[in-house]
Amino acid sequence: MLPYNIHHTAIAVSDLDRTLEYYATNFKIRPISIETIDDQGVREAMIALGGSHIQLLEPLHPDTPVGRFLAKHGEGLHHIAFAVTDIDTAVAHLREQGVSLIDEVPRRGGGGHRIAFVHPRDHNGTLIELVEVHDG
Amino acid sequence: MLPYNIHHTAIAVSDLDRTLEYYATNFKIRPISIETIDDQGVREAMIALGGSHIQLLEPLHPDTPVGRFLAKHGEGLHHIAFAVTDIDTAVAHLREQGVSLIDEVPRRGGGGHRIAFVHPRDHNGTLIELVEVHDG
Repeated sequence: MLPYNIHHTAIAVSDLDRTLEYYATNFKIRPISIETIDDQGVREAMIALGGSHIQLLEPLHPDTPVGRFLAKHGEGLHHIAFAVTDIDTAVAHLREQGVSLIDEVPRRGGGGHRIAFVHPRDHNGTLIELVEVHDG
Repeated sequence: MLPYNIHHTAIAVSDLDRTLEYYATNFKIRPISIETIDDQGVREAMIALGGSHIQLLEPLHPDTPVGRFLAKHGEGLHHIAFAVTDIDTAVAHLREQGVSLIDEVPRRGGGGHRIAFVHPRDHNGTLIELVEVHDG
């Protein structure tokens, strides 16, 4: 249940295509996937880098979590995601420890992985996502 | 000169020891190093996780870059660092591309690595650090 990797670091952006162009031009790094996740209200690109990823998040509408983040903070770092082998056990452990969870029950995220968000208030203002990675 | 890994994701915190306790209790992850870097005005902990790291930054005084960040934004994600093999070439390439750099000339950072910061204004409000990792 313990985190074994930083699965991704996520950045909220207002224009995904322009941002991907920036990364391609300046760092020669390109996305391995781009997908629209309606129930999170985002278009999301994953850039693999070493054993981790940069995730770029563009809101589909202003009235979404990432849209509200942009309105409040502007573009910038949004959350960090830890890979865990067993997300149900991880969530149960955090709940036992009294850590506030945004998702008490894991749900499907990008790539079909099961995810759960931990509330930033217990965690130095940092939004943390747990990801149970599945292959294929 | 291209980035080959996310070396670390950095989080600004007001109380490093309390934060380390949080990580140890809830995620069973512990720092591999804690050091004070006077010229950056921080006490910094590195937690290895998979092939990357979480870097926790506590300001030594309010009148430091991280101290001012905390005063303005509160605790939270501070920057992301890309590992590069040759930081001089990477910096020269970015300068050629017209990307604004905070450090035109690389300097020594934590762990004795050579580092340079890229200005967030060209980069979706995200502060990016380049790190040329040296072993030993």
